[in-house]
Amino acid sequence: MMASPTVTIGILGAGQLGRMLALAGLPLGVRCRFLDAKPNCPASPVGEVIHEGFKIGPHLDRFADGIAAGGGVITYEFENVPVEAAEHLTEHATVRPSPRSLEVAQDRLRERELFASLRIDAPRHAAVHTLDELEVAVGDFPLPAILKTCRMGYDGKGQARIKSPGDAAGAWETIGGHHSVEGNGGAILDEMIPFERELSVVAVRGIDGEVRCYPPVENMHRDGILVRSIAPAPGVGEVMLAALEKAAAAVAEELDHVGVLAVEFFETKAKEGRPARLLANEFAPRVHNTGHWTIEGAATSQFENHLRAVLAMPLGSTEMMAGAHAAMVNIIGGWPDREALLRIPGLRVHDYEKSARPGRKLGHVTIVEASEGAMREKLGAVEAMVNKG
Amino acid sequence: MMASPTVTIGILGAGQLGRMLALAGLPLGVRCRFLDAKPNCPASPVGEVIHEGFKIGPHLDRFADGIAAGGGVITYEFENVPVEAAEHLTEHATVRPSPRSLEVAQDRLRERELFASLRIDAPRHAAVHTLDELEVAVGDFPLPAILKTCRMGYDGKGQARIKSPGDAAGAWETIGGHHSVEGNGGAILDEMIPFERELSVVAVRGIDGEVRCYPPVENMHRDGILVRSIAPAPGVGEVMLAALEKAAAAVAEELDHVGVLAVEFFETKAKEGRPARLLANEFAPRVHNTGHWTIEGAATSQFENHLRAVLAMPLGSTEMMAGAHAAMVNIIGGWPDREALLRIPGLRVHDYEKSARPGRKLGHVTIVEASEGAMREKLGAVEAMVNKG
Repeated sequence: MMASPTVTIGILGAGQLGRMLALAGLPLGVRCRFLDAKPNCPASPVGEVIHEGFKIGPHLDRFADGIAAGGGVITYEFENVPVEAAEHLTEHATVRPSPRSLEVAQDRLRERELFASLRIDAPRHAAVHTLDELEVAVGDFPLPAILKTCRMGYDGKGQARIKSPGDAAGAWETIGGHHSVEGNGGAILDEMIPFERELSVVAVRGIDGEVRCYPPVENMHRDGILVRSIAPAPGVGEVMLAALEKAAAAVAEELDHVGVLAVEFFETKAKEGRPARLLANEFAPRVHNTGHWTIEGAATSQFENHLRAVLAMPLGSTEMMAGAHAAMVNIIGGWPDREALLRIPGLRVHDYEKSARPGRKLGHVTIVEASEGAMREKLGAVEAMVNKG
Repeated sequence: MMASPTVTIGILGAGQLGRMLALAGLPLGVRCRFLDAKPNCPASPVGEVIHEGFKIGPHLDRFADGIAAGGGVITYEFENVPVEAAEHLTEHATVRPSPRSLEVAQDRLRERELFASLRIDAPRHAAVHTLDELEVAVGDFPLPAILKTCRMGYDGKGQARIKSPGDAAGAWETIGGHHSVEGNGGAILDEMIPFERELSVVAVRGIDGEVRCYPPVENMHRDGILVRSIAPAPGVGEVMLAALEKAAAAVAEELDHVGVLAVEFFETKAKEGRPARLLANEFAPRVHNTGHWTIEGAATSQFENHLRAVLAMPLGSTEMMAGAHAAMVNIIGGWPDREALLRIPGLRVHDYEKSARPGRKLGHVTIVEASEGAMREKLGAVEAMVNKG
């Protein structure tokens, strides 16, 4: 018989993912301390936030203080944390997932090279480091295409569409041009996939190498921002399920990743006897917006499973309740009438306590129902109400 | 379109119930501030705790500061809060449930009188204020009986069994005798019910008077402490369900209660053509240990529904997922091996971060399964592991 083994972990980033990690940790006796660049963060009400940023400095020692001695580890919820900071912190405590997961995920080119090395199909791409290289590349590339910075892009930022060769210079400027792209990892010119839908797999890999996948999720984006996810993704047969899980497990294994990661895929339309294709688009070495439904919809949430993994605890079940159907809708830019939302029976509201701003994810709501029909009915009620502004 | 309407509520008591209220509040943008007598409380990691106790004093003003102005209210999670403190606080902010719910729940005699006035069957009782009155009462009372202090009894404390009239003096001494019982509400001599099982109903009443009941729960106690709950309680037919819900609603309405309350019942064995009887034993004017399963097992947890009610928000659904079966087991006195617990698939662990002590509730675990058989199998695995020390 033992007392409560309270442990503190350090989290790089104090956004909503950190907030939800802390909320998952508290019932397990796991407390979180955060590092971020700003003082008022979504995670502020659930743990101490050291808000002096990610540069190397004495505040990193303060952030790491006592964590290793107390049996804790350092992890991250923000994938654009400087790799140097994560590496520096490995001198103070175990960092899981290892900084290598960060390093690869931060660079679209290395990410695509990883997929290629694992024989995971992905959109065709070309590496471009200068406008000259881009001008050459567009001459020999199926258009329209998308130009993406290799580094620091998220939620549709750092991207521009190229419909004809003449768009190259403008697109180069849009993504930051020689100011911020050259010498900073460059960019990739990416095949534009006329995809039918986007799918993602959230997986957790334990310290012993075991990988468990949540059911695949169908996602809808608008302006590059995730709007909603449905789990399990409808119409995913055994063959596709196996391919999705195999790809996610391969990425996790290759990186010796410990914790949660998510891989996003495009599914193309099946036509003229050719089956639908799955193309890996990107992965995130962390808990993921397309896994938020697991808080209510799975036996163990992605947040709890990430904590279990990085703390070398046994992984939790990634299964849904038999027959259950979940949907998650992001609240973007502004909240609808709160009372009207709360009147939808069984709707779960997650408010990140962020100030409203166009395009900003302020929270999400989750529906879990015993039938797909009931889930879709409530999803319709939610979508009639949110993200109208 | 609105920003997040973050609000702070004040909670009297900072134990595990306060901790779980705060964990339910954070996703809604509700923050909690606590008042307690001790500095290190289960709620300490989830909100500010003012730990100068419940006596009237300037610290109560600090506790209430800004709550009303920010749209918040004051509520309680501990039913032995002095009524004077709750009443004093009504000068600073709305207190929900009203101090009257506290006042009645704190006195077993008034509680029984409430049940009687509502024609809710309860065990036979006699009020006794002195040892002399007790000696007289036992002469005319079916023995064995239980002597209980009217005030400040919980988890089996303040109780003594009387098997024969000669036990009266000893029992009077055991429950505190003339030192703490006389002049402090006295005691009741209570019929000992040879009950088949204990049931409880957790209900929430909204600001508009609407009452919603969670499915009734079957509870098992050991040494006066709740050991486990199963929801829905097996074998509760329509007639019994209606009686249980009617009683809970009647108590809530009579007290004009706003928030969650729980009513505990004994169910006697049906015999010789006489149906089983339901006898109300007591009620708690707050979230309740027999409702902890609702965190994972119901559409809206009792904690969230309490917050919704006291903040005059729409009540959430009290339904379970169709066909689901839940069990909750308290962790009492000490934790079993944490890894072994976490290996049970789907088990949810709630650690209150309390130091171990015999008879102390340190946490609970919850199982939710799609069939009663699967729930009972996991419950067996849990019970083979916990509360052995």
